[in-house]
Amino acid sequence: MDTKARIEAALEEAVTQATLAPCPPRLSEAIAYAVFPGGGRVRPGLCLAVARACGDPDPALANAAAVAVELLHCASLIQDDLPCFDDAAMRRGRLSLHKRFGEEIAILVGDALIVMAFRAVAALVTASPAKTAAILSVLAGAAGAPAGIAAGQAWESESSVDLAAYHHAKTAALFEAAAVAGAIAGGAEPAAWRLAGGLLGEAYQVADDLADALGEARRLGKPIHQDGDKRRPSVVAQLGIEGAGQKLDELLDRAMQSVPECPGRPDVEAFLALTAERLCPPTLRVAR
Amino acid sequence: MDTKARIEAALEEAVTQATLAPCPPRLSEAIAYAVFPGGGRVRPGLCLAVARACGDPDPALANAAAVAVELLHCASLIQDDLPCFDDAAMRRGRLSLHKRFGEEIAILVGDALIVMAFRAVAALVTASPAKTAAILSVLAGAAGAPAGIAAGQAWESESSVDLAAYHHAKTAALFEAAAVAGAIAGGAEPAAWRLAGGLLGEAYQVADDLADALGEARRLGKPIHQDGDKRRPSVVAQLGIEGAGQKLDELLDRAMQSVPECPGRPDVEAFLALTAERLCPPTLRVAR
Repeated sequence: MDTKARIEAALEEAVTQATLAPCPPRLSEAIAYAVFPGGGRVRPGLCLAVARACGDPDPALANAAAVAVELLHCASLIQDDLPCFDDAAMRRGRLSLHKRFGEEIAILVGDALIVMAFRAVAALVTASPAKTAAILSVLAGAAGAPAGIAAGQAWESESSVDLAAYHHAKTAALFEAAAVAGAIAGGAEPAAWRLAGGLLGEAYQVADDLADALGEARRLGKPIHQDGDKRRPSVVAQLGIEGAGQKLDELLDRAMQSVPECPGRPDVEAFLALTAERLCPPTLRVAR
Repeated sequence: MDTKARIEAALEEAVTQATLAPCPPRLSEAIAYAVFPGGGRVRPGLCLAVARACGDPDPALANAAAVAVELLHCASLIQDDLPCFDDAAMRRGRLSLHKRFGEEIAILVGDALIVMAFRAVAALVTASPAKTAAILSVLAGAAGAPAGIAAGQAWESESSVDLAAYHHAKTAALFEAAAVAGAIAGGAEPAAWRLAGGLLGEAYQVADDLADALGEARRLGKPIHQDGDKRRPSVVAQLGIEGAGQKLDELLDRAMQSVPECPGRPDVEAFLALTAERLCPPTLRVAR
């Protein structure tokens, strides 16, 4: 089974388990809507790429870790779109979850996805206690406080922002967790993989800020930043468009160089190259 | 250390860990605000009462389980109070979390508390894999979908409600989980404790519906139900005040009778009697 199919099958299993009777029907529908169809599945892709590069000795655990990082990501997207955050009506070309199912259900789906993430990995505790313990700890760190996604979003409510902590928590932490969890499932030393994952996550954040700024520029004819309008901390606001573009290149290079020696290193490099390609779409390259 | 002090110390530890640097300052403050000072701490009290009744062979795990059920409960209260749910300005005599810190922070604290709950137990996986695996599974079941707190709240968004599933998921599931987790930490067979916990949880839900209905009656001079106004499924709406009162008595009796034989049975019975006393305040008794 290829990586994409593994991810979808594992997500399908987690969603099925969470939406069995007696699940309220609209909650069931909304949980499935939140997870399928996905976006790039980049985080679980990274997790499985690393596990495979390490020989993939425990595919069930690698799948569970990949599912967990993707579910935590889906939960964060739902919350990002809520009226009190970005108030976004659309996500991936269709109605955002709260627009489709109401705000109550959107908030509850967020909770359910976080629980599903932990359940997916916890189900393998008896089979692999040490590895699952490490993965659960990494997931908790990437999702909650003091330095996970919840903390990352919370920086947006502060009057004075620690920009490095903000970007790390909001985006890089889950990329790091994906790489580290893949390495743990693969039986490898996670430290070097943490670096590679974190750098890719940082690159993602910079690319996101750039796309936001350039998208606005194209629509309005001048570089007014949506992030800026919402007074959201942004690498573009800090470094300018050119500086942010240079930073993106540099981060992707460093991510590539940081991949540890291992049997499947070429596959991870190919994954990173493909991801880098996605992060620098033609519009971004032309603008730079 | 008495039970109350054990609970507070264990919660303090979990909150400290989640609010260390680099946690955004307002999120730190809000997490502490959500957990301290607590209400009756009934769920962690039940968890520790059961663990102690079983000889308390693994107090660290019992504490972690007690912390987890209380954090899941605190998260559910924050969400209940949100504008899209009950829109409650006050909780326990002071501003509700979203009124004090804003809706964004309230939602993020909910996430953080759920993560903290799983982290507290997951930290003991290596020491007690089988027990923690069972407790994590029970917690996931009580918190998420298809039949935990998230599912319970989601029933309120359905046009046709499965009343038994609704009440079980919204309230009884976490009481069951508290009793079962205490039994697992105590090394006991959890099935009988599940029954006792579930019955106490059902009693709690009935007492809550009764208090809501009678509070309205006292204020307005006639029995108009707040639950009814919000078209929320209610035992009082189903059975009337007298019927609900009889059901409460019956559930408390059955909970008491269902306590399994064990060295500390009298202590658990004392805990249940005290809880029953709290559930039937004088106003309720007079009204009945």
